[in-house]
Amino acid sequence: MAKITKRSPLAPDEFPKLPMIAGVSFAAAQAGVRYGGRTDVMLALLAPGTAMAGVFTRSATRSANVLDCQAKIGTPAEAGAAIVVNSGNSNAFTGRAGDESVAAICAAVARTTGVPETRVFTSSTGVIGERLPHDRIIAKLEELEAGLSEDAIEAAAHAIMTTDTFPKGAAASFSRDGKTVSIAGIAKGSGMIAPDMATMLVYVFTDAKIVQPDLQAMLSELTGPTFNSITVDSDTSTSDTLLMAATGVSGVTIPAGDAEFRAALHSVMLDLAHQVVRDGEGATKFVEIRVTGAANDADARTHAMAIANSPLVKTAIAGEDPNWGRIVMAVGKSGAAADRDRLTIRFGDVLVAENGWVAPSYREEDAAALMKEPEIFISVDLGLGAGTATVWTCDLTHGYIEINADYRS
Amino acid sequence: MAKITKRSPLAPDEFPKLPMIAGVSFAAAQAGVRYGGRTDVMLALLAPGTAMAGVFTRSATRSANVLDCQAKIGTPAEAGAAIVVNSGNSNAFTGRAGDESVAAICAAVARTTGVPETRVFTSSTGVIGERLPHDRIIAKLEELEAGLSEDAIEAAAHAIMTTDTFPKGAAASFSRDGKTVSIAGIAKGSGMIAPDMATMLVYVFTDAKIVQPDLQAMLSELTGPTFNSITVDSDTSTSDTLLMAATGVSGVTIPAGDAEFRAALHSVMLDLAHQVVRDGEGATKFVEIRVTGAANDADARTHAMAIANSPLVKTAIAGEDPNWGRIVMAVGKSGAAADRDRLTIRFGDVLVAENGWVAPSYREEDAAALMKEPEIFISVDLGLGAGTATVWTCDLTHGYIEINADYRS
Repeated sequence: MAKITKRSPLAPDEFPKLPMIAGVSFAAAQAGVRYGGRTDVMLALLAPGTAMAGVFTRSATRSANVLDCQAKIGTPAEAGAAIVVNSGNSNAFTGRAGDESVAAICAAVARTTGVPETRVFTSSTGVIGERLPHDRIIAKLEELEAGLSEDAIEAAAHAIMTTDTFPKGAAASFSRDGKTVSIAGIAKGSGMIAPDMATMLVYVFTDAKIVQPDLQAMLSELTGPTFNSITVDSDTSTSDTLLMAATGVSGVTIPAGDAEFRAALHSVMLDLAHQVVRDGEGATKFVEIRVTGAANDADARTHAMAIANSPLVKTAIAGEDPNWGRIVMAVGKSGAAADRDRLTIRFGDVLVAENGWVAPSYREEDAAALMKEPEIFISVDLGLGAGTATVWTCDLTHGYIEINADYRS
Repeated sequence: MAKITKRSPLAPDEFPKLPMIAGVSFAAAQAGVRYGGRTDVMLALLAPGTAMAGVFTRSATRSANVLDCQAKIGTPAEAGAAIVVNSGNSNAFTGRAGDESVAAICAAVARTTGVPETRVFTSSTGVIGERLPHDRIIAKLEELEAGLSEDAIEAAAHAIMTTDTFPKGAAASFSRDGKTVSIAGIAKGSGMIAPDMATMLVYVFTDAKIVQPDLQAMLSELTGPTFNSITVDSDTSTSDTLLMAATGVSGVTIPAGDAEFRAALHSVMLDLAHQVVRDGEGATKFVEIRVTGAANDADARTHAMAIANSPLVKTAIAGEDPNWGRIVMAVGKSGAAADRDRLTIRFGDVLVAENGWVAPSYREEDAAALMKEPEIFISVDLGLGAGTATVWTCDLTHGYIEINADYRS
């Protein structure tokens, strides 16, 4: 089994200090689903009235947990809610047994916490195709319930890690009417437990009072420029899940589309998304790709993702090679509109190519110096219209091969 | 600069014995475009009446040579034709200078051979974004013209290599009306000269007599199940070119869609396509992916390509890991129709998964033994309809990273 212990060179120095969110309590435990000597299950209990919103993988082979969460998202909020997440086994592609595991966990959580089954949300991440030993999780529910604390979000962030090299958290807050509204979130992603694919799980909590449709609308909209604008290796998990809970305990009511709340939520989601990229398998470079001047925003995104997912671009960045020819290649193959002779390419502030050829002012040593930095900025202007998009990715290194070409057993 | 000298472990033992094609003669020379001590330019001269067909990259940033070839494909055949190919410099993304280089070479070839400029086809492969030193090619044209021989196709196959680890050739022939019709082709591909992308160039020759529209129709149709069904790393060159010449010198007229000719041409194209995969950068495994039971053929192809291009699938194969969970993931993310619980997956003859879960008969040691072979067969049945597709790829190894993450300078 692949064992990754080295903290990503792109990791933040430490886990951030996250505010407590009134109406949410957390606990973590060692259930021994697959790992030994570490926590691998977390419970979050949410106050009555909590609105739940969610965004899920569009994979046609998504896991039993994802299907169950999707079915429950719109259920009435009065009874509160619970979230249970385990690492070590994804319960994906486990047939009918997978559905049975989800049902068994939800029933047991309902018995232990008093939250109805229709308000219990589960995620599983880890090995796929092996039956989830859900009894091990159920056996820990009383311990989890007894240990619930408003100040345990960091423990929850640790329990959901697979081969993530650091726990991921982010927060934002603002004042309104003399009260403070807080948002805090945790995530795991881009770590790999052989033989699984990289799964991204994200849980965001706020004490704001927002009705479910408004919360869902904001969460769905903000997923586009955040979690759906990152890519490590273009592969999509069967378990990707983003859940958001608004407890309302702050007493501050947030109307639909509130700009201040939207900005705060955007910052938390973007921060977590960037941390997922910074923990990309084998990553040594954090790369921002900004496309402007495309025929429209959709075309800009197509170009940006073609660049971000190109193995040739990603290996060039790993080699600190300012290989702009590969950017031209990726734009050309993307399928979106482009005119070779209107392309402008920059690395950071260095103008690399324009008018269909290398810029007269370009000196390779300038670009080569930028490529040695841990953060790389690539901008491409198509010269065609007003479409823009920004995406983030990492490089493709020997580390990625090492993590993913290892034997599973 | 990356220097790859080791012959691919998947290479054939030797260059095949190719038949001479009446009406085509070849020559190769050392022009010193970029490389020293090897041939890097080839000339093929085609008899009057030769019909030319072509299929080209759809890249929006395609090279000046490609644009020029596309414009000339349908010109009248009476005057014959010439093909000039250089390696070492792709003349791609070189702005107006790129067009000037193509025009200069075509004019010089016309002067030397008597073939009109409108029938001179050029390809360039190698470094991109640097001006092609076309004078070095032009300076060799008289030597090339003097050295033309019907028996020099292998020399031509060598001259077009970049970091290919072996020259690629294939042939087929059949009898009709007491005469023999022959087809012979050469290709380069998936080799990399830093900092270029992998470019595939293919030249196929026959002595059959076919009118241009019929030749073009057959070539275009057969590109789908051959060259467009292989992938090394999902990146598409700005220079990909497939040219076919039918000299007619055999005197055998081939009508539109002739089944025997079609089968012979298919075998040559498929053989060359497979050789390109076998020389994939860093490849240690040749992988066939067959999808059946899809809603339609287009869906089958989408699934097959999603599997073939998945970095997680390709690294698992590199690690000889029968990681069928990653196949499920790739099918799920492809965007084409799939039902998790109807999927059937096989490695070779080993039934791995069915009915949404691992097969009861599955023993990992059986699949693990198959994964140690140099040729891997993966089949996926969707259980939805009659759509089928087969594609070929290679694994993703440290060798790929080594070749592509090297410094350009």
